[in-house]
Amino acid sequence: MGENDDSEIIEHHVEEEMEKKGTRSHAASSSSFPESVTPSDREGHSGTQSSHRLLAYSDALISIIATVMILPVAHTKMEDDEELRESFQLLLTTKIAVYLMTFLIVTVAWAAHIRLFQVIVRIDDCLALLNLACMMLITFLPYTFSLMATFPTNLLGILLFCGCVMVIGVIQSVIVLYAFSRPFLLNEQIQISENQTFYKHHILKVIMRVPLMCMFASIFSLIFLQLSYVLLAIVIFLPYISQSLKWCRSKAIGQVEETPDSMLFYTYLPNEPLSKDRVEAFSDGVYAIVATLLILDICEDNVPDPIVVQKQFGGSLIAALQVYGPEYLAYFGSFATVGLLWFVHHSLFLHVTKATRFMGLLNTFSLAFVGGLPLAYQLTHEFPHNSRNELEAIQISCVIIFFAGIFQLTIWVVALYNEHETLHPYVRYGGREHAFMLAKLALYPCVALGTFFLTCILSKFSAQIFHLMMITVPFAFLVLRLLVRVGLALLRLIFCPDRPDPRSIVEEEDETRVPFNALVT
Amino acid sequence: MGENDDSEIIEHHVEEEMEKKGTRSHAASSSSFPESVTPSDREGHSGTQSSHRLLAYSDALISIIATVMILPVAHTKMEDDEELRESFQLLLTTKIAVYLMTFLIVTVAWAAHIRLFQVIVRIDDCLALLNLACMMLITFLPYTFSLMATFPTNLLGILLFCGCVMVIGVIQSVIVLYAFSRPFLLNEQIQISENQTFYKHHILKVIMRVPLMCMFASIFSLIFLQLSYVLLAIVIFLPYISQSLKWCRSKAIGQVEETPDSMLFYTYLPNEPLSKDRVEAFSDGVYAIVATLLILDICEDNVPDPIVVQKQFGGSLIAALQVYGPEYLAYFGSFATVGLLWFVHHSLFLHVTKATRFMGLLNTFSLAFVGGLPLAYQLTHEFPHNSRNELEAIQISCVIIFFAGIFQLTIWVVALYNEHETLHPYVRYGGREHAFMLAKLALYPCVALGTFFLTCILSKFSAQIFHLMMITVPFAFLVLRLLVRVGLALLRLIFCPDRPDPRSIVEEEDETRVPFNALVT
Repeated sequence: MGENDDSEIIEHHVEEEMEKKGTRSHAASSSSFPESVTPSDREGHSGTQSSHRLLAYSDALISIIATVMILPVAHTKMEDDEELRESFQLLLTTKIAVYLMTFLIVTVAWAAHIRLFQVIVRIDDCLALLNLACMMLITFLPYTFSLMATFPTNLLGILLFCGCVMVIGVIQSVIVLYAFSRPFLLNEQIQISENQTFYKHHILKVIMRVPLMCMFASIFSLIFLQLSYVLLAIVIFLPYISQSLKWCRSKAIGQVEETPDSMLFYTYLPNEPLSKDRVEAFSDGVYAIVATLLILDICEDNVPDPIVVQKQFGGSLIAALQVYGPEYLAYFGSFATVGLLWFVHHSLFLHVTKATRFMGLLNTFSLAFVGGLPLAYQLTHEFPHNSRNELEAIQISCVIIFFAGIFQLTIWVVALYNEHETLHPYVRYGGREHAFMLAKLALYPCVALGTFFLTCILSKFSAQIFHLMMITVPFAFLVLRLLVRVGLALLRLIFCPDRPDPRSIVEEEDETRVPFNALVT
Repeated sequence: MGENDDSEIIEHHVEEEMEKKGTRSHAASSSSFPESVTPSDREGHSGTQSSHRLLAYSDALISIIATVMILPVAHTKMEDDEELRESFQLLLTTKIAVYLMTFLIVTVAWAAHIRLFQVIVRIDDCLALLNLACMMLITFLPYTFSLMATFPTNLLGILLFCGCVMVIGVIQSVIVLYAFSRPFLLNEQIQISENQTFYKHHILKVIMRVPLMCMFASIFSLIFLQLSYVLLAIVIFLPYISQSLKWCRSKAIGQVEETPDSMLFYTYLPNEPLSKDRVEAFSDGVYAIVATLLILDICEDNVPDPIVVQKQFGGSLIAALQVYGPEYLAYFGSFATVGLLWFVHHSLFLHVTKATRFMGLLNTFSLAFVGGLPLAYQLTHEFPHNSRNELEAIQISCVIIFFAGIFQLTIWVVALYNEHETLHPYVRYGGREHAFMLAKLALYPCVALGTFFLTCILSKFSAQIFHLMMITVPFAFLVLRLLVRVGLALLRLIFCPDRPDPRSIVEEEDETRVPFNALVT
């Protein structure tokens, strides 16, 4: 395509630069990596460092902690006793609720951590140590929360929780004060601004809001326990609630244009968009932990005792291992599903330039469902064939996959709504790539929904249908590009049969390859 | 093609190439992140992507798997029975051996993965899916290995292990073939070279070597089992052994200068240096998992049952939780120690530009010891005060900390030996930063050694000494910079008392701040 191509590429770059200038504050953090290559070379010896690795480590810790409470759910022993069934279901429900709430709470703490380190873009030893102390307390939050859930009428849980949150607040304030006393650690935008003290007070105010509310909650808890729970719930989920309300309102009565002035200043408000790097790192951590959850169990429990093998199976290891057969299947099945959901997530975020708060919330929901997946898979193999339990377990698996996938799809839809803010320029114009992305995102929800209804109708063959689904989906992903192309070609043939179809596709293909060929030669 | 536009783009690439030639082959992967900002914007829509996130996810998975075998060690129940003690110790020793061997094996697989993705620097959907399949098999390796260790005379373990390795080899070959059929996915150096087929055959040969040996081992296992174990051991650890031998020889009889020619070509040999990014990501994963190992247990096991609290403790939750008190202490202690060791690692790798194979091996050893730390800490709190078991547990903790720290120190020493190859230019000239780095690295080994000998002498106060150590070390890190400065000043006062000391320090301080002030104004 000669000339046109190139001018396009250049325009692209110019646009990108424009965009970077426009997006400001978050650019500082997203550009922290390239920075680490050059300035840290020069400045590393004076004791300050790029915060990139510290943040990656924090993300890893937080993602592990977020998924930790799924373990008590996993290890709840199934009772076949009908009498105990009800109390067992109550216990399980409590544990699942704890898991979901923990996930949300930890995610809120993580979002606050992101905001803090969008202000502080370089660190030194002292900040690294303070951050570690902060992490230690954050990793303790799930436990205090599960105490609260198990003993709802006891003061201790809520006091511990509030205590942790208050100490975290104090440490974060120390971090902010320390960073402002060494302005070269700060975001460039704040560094060059004249009223740093204003920013300092503003940020401290925002940070101390939650710990103060927690202090009130802990004081109230001595008088009237229920009220303090309500207070806590409001404090923790306020940013999400207000953000979703605002989003709904703006969609209902039309967007109120943000003044360009407000974009120039760093606001440090809860609806600040999240850094894409950190959303990715956090999601990677969760997907990695979840994918390996079952192998952790298998490695620990499923190596038979030599004495048992000798006595019960006459020394035949294969016979002994066949008992565990279903668990291996569950492992490979859940690893494949979680891996493919990660793959979809990865493809999705290739096109995203920044994640708004609402997209972050949807991502959290999707990850929370992913966390339950291995257990659901394990259950599908635990019950005898054609039992009611097996059917239920398979249907629960389908529901979980469906929700995990549908939330990913929603992220994409929301991103398309604000495409100028959230997507790369080249995906804004639709076309085949849009169709391909949509197919990727819709594959798992559609398959899960289909399997669900099929198992409802053909409940006798539910296990076979489920296994067939598990095996075909990875191959479907491999040939998806082909499938979409064929589908689009068919659509075109049906609706505008007069266009010379196959040739145009070939041409398009060639076009996209030009940059590479230019590179090769 | 538009002339102006093009020349710009080409210049861009020339610059990049210049840079890359400077930093050699590993630059290709380490620069994949900045690349992802610009070219992927342009190229993402044609289906290829930067491999950065795929590699991060793989690192996360592999680091989890490497540390997984510590769990069976952790959950071995202690027997107070003297008769069972011996068989218990044997079991524990086996499990620890399995843990260490798994760690090494997984690290070898990880190193091979690094080398593979130093050749392939961009990915598309198909490669991502193939890589996921490969990961699935790698995560299964620890289990097959623990089968081998538990049933050393049974064929099944070794056959499973060899089977996994062979399938991994086949998948990796498919990845290589696929990537060479689409040369724009490859390392630039290979992309521009004329004999791509030579490279392809060479890389395939190297990749298939291990699976082929495994095939022989599995055939031999049918005839003579012991031999196949020897074969496996040789295959897996050959790169490490040959590398260490070469290093020792080169230190003993003097370095044989590498010909500059060989550096220009991509060799794909096992002693290729590792990408620094990936060493960091892998270490971060291990440190994060290890730091949270105890909280995983605490969240699962240490929430008391409401009924038990009612019956045994008269409804007092605090009394019920006091039973678990030592485990909380163990958690905070191990989190702090692992966190601080991470901090030292982080400081160390700020100065490193690339990790040679030998440094990678030392890093692996250090991480393997770190993995055992939480368990040792847990044991120190499990036994009654002043018992022989307690003393032993404390001393084991000290030994583990000592080795974890001393291997980190060795990395630094080895890096200093080849400083032109491995360190940033600004740290090559010694001075105060060297002293500071050394102090950071030496702090834990020295403290651990000191505690060990103190507990030998004052065995009555061992617990108190150990707790004191745990509390003072974090503060020592906070004031370390000050301590080193004071120490150096004292040294200077003693050895050259005529120099005007404090002023020069202040000046130096000002000097290092200049770049920041320049940035600020």
